[in-house]
Amino acid sequence: MEASTVSARPWFPQRVTICEVGPRDGLQNEAVSVRTDDKVRYIDLLAAAGCSNIEVTSFVNPKAVPQLADAEAVWARLAVFPGCRYIALVANERGLERAFAAGVRAIGLFTAASDAFTQRNIGMSVDESLTAFAPLAARAKADGMYVRASISTAFGCPFAGPVRVADVVRVAQGLWALGVDEVSIADTIGVATPNQVFDVVAALVPHLPVQRIGLHFHDTRGTALANIVAGLQSGVAIYDSSAGGLGGCPFAPGATGNVATEDVLYMLHGMGIATGVDLDRVRAASRFIGEKLTGRVVSRAFAALEAADRRAALTRA
Amino acid sequence: MEASTVSARPWFPQRVTICEVGPRDGLQNEAVSVRTDDKVRYIDLLAAAGCSNIEVTSFVNPKAVPQLADAEAVWARLAVFPGCRYIALVANERGLERAFAAGVRAIGLFTAASDAFTQRNIGMSVDESLTAFAPLAARAKADGMYVRASISTAFGCPFAGPVRVADVVRVAQGLWALGVDEVSIADTIGVATPNQVFDVVAALVPHLPVQRIGLHFHDTRGTALANIVAGLQSGVAIYDSSAGGLGGCPFAPGATGNVATEDVLYMLHGMGIATGVDLDRVRAASRFIGEKLTGRVVSRAFAALEAADRRAALTRA
Repeated sequence: MEASTVSARPWFPQRVTICEVGPRDGLQNEAVSVRTDDKVRYIDLLAAAGCSNIEVTSFVNPKAVPQLADAEAVWARLAVFPGCRYIALVANERGLERAFAAGVRAIGLFTAASDAFTQRNIGMSVDESLTAFAPLAARAKADGMYVRASISTAFGCPFAGPVRVADVVRVAQGLWALGVDEVSIADTIGVATPNQVFDVVAALVPHLPVQRIGLHFHDTRGTALANIVAGLQSGVAIYDSSAGGLGGCPFAPGATGNVATEDVLYMLHGMGIATGVDLDRVRAASRFIGEKLTGRVVSRAFAALEAADRRAALTRA
Repeated sequence: MEASTVSARPWFPQRVTICEVGPRDGLQNEAVSVRTDDKVRYIDLLAAAGCSNIEVTSFVNPKAVPQLADAEAVWARLAVFPGCRYIALVANERGLERAFAAGVRAIGLFTAASDAFTQRNIGMSVDESLTAFAPLAARAKADGMYVRASISTAFGCPFAGPVRVADVVRVAQGLWALGVDEVSIADTIGVATPNQVFDVVAALVPHLPVQRIGLHFHDTRGTALANIVAGLQSGVAIYDSSAGGLGGCPFAPGATGNVATEDVLYMLHGMGIATGVDLDRVRAASRFIGEKLTGRVVSRAFAALEAADRRAALTRA
């Protein structure tokens, strides 16, 4: 039998950058507090696994986010991995000062596509946040920092409901005009489906280079990997994920939040797309941090691969 | 701001048939036995939800599959829903006789793409299974039955490892030559990734009509919905799923098995693809059967939607 020689596969990027958000976005949303030592160890394990972009912590008000009150202490103890970019969230001038003082070289700024969300989350409208971020982005870029800007609720808002594609484009243009290096489009509540991804990315690409667009999906309704396929096909090659799927969903207690790094890696590597990240070593990081948390690791690939290892160990025994 | 008028979405079928496998494939693989009454109620709820194809039970050796030993009792009590096709699995002449006697109008035959699997599962090689199925398919078709034939391990075998696309094509051709109505290609252990789906479907379409190809995915590594997107893009419009994600994975204890009907419906409906199935009513069926099982319902969309309902109920209270 002759195999077909014409590939039926659509075009996909051959290399993808994973931005590992477990230490910040993941741990911030877990009920259990993790010791500074354990956070540092978790981040070290992720960096050793080949994660080249890691969202490490937030320099924000420790009263608002007590889980990340040890930002300086964590930062001071990070090991140096060549080529690894550690990212810290910053919400205002005070946070940027703390980040400068700590030696941070990459910051993340967070706004949203809906005023209802930014008002509750950062106490400003979306437009006010763009105005507030302008001097932060300018100072950070003048200092040679990498600046990542995220748009939460880009596929739906827990307070306002559906979000218009035009609103996402408007905010992305606003952020891009501030001179940021990357704009990350986030499905904060995990409602997106693939056609929305095709639509949003297609609407963005006339306004900023597709190489500077990132996508951040939650697996709350199981659609995260399907959305990544749509993102890949649209040309996007930067994806956020959380080792072990840490983080949960603050808007749907008991539901899944961030897509798990293990699931993303399993799929991408299966598709022949390189990430530079070692799935087994990410699993080791998830195993480590899972033991520190009462919440279980929710990655499906993690569960399947751990089960396979236990089976193999029994066979050898 | 002008929205782009050229759609960036790839072509997808506008209507999809869901084959609900919870009552058979799901319950067969759950540790807890369910009462006949509860099975009938579960199936009724699914049919009332609009499921037009339901894998109900198996007419196989009750010693081999004790969970489905009540096949006749279940069948005798199924409510009549116009347009709903109830499917029963049959493995041999004896099973077909029982199915005839029970009034079954649609049967499912199961072989695999790997001899290692069929030897363990049905005690024959793949070729022997095709030979054995020939008279069964002929008799069933002569009687006007609908015949569905499934190919397990089409994307990987728990015993033999990787499976060649050419082997899947060969088995599909063999089944199609028996005059079956539909060939379902199954990822029994949940290892498939989207490029494999593109490759397998592309290799099959020269040999049988794409309208007669079904896909059966497991979400063991989180890739099921991504694989369905690849299947849709390849033209396949028949997908198996299990309400609540019942079934687990016999080859990776503790891991996820069948993709959940709720997750599939959430994605398809979000993409504007019609199924005729009501997601909220499927959830009711999963809630019902979940209470009868010690295993929890593993659908992510189910968990998120249940959480949203609890939240809305609190707000109203």
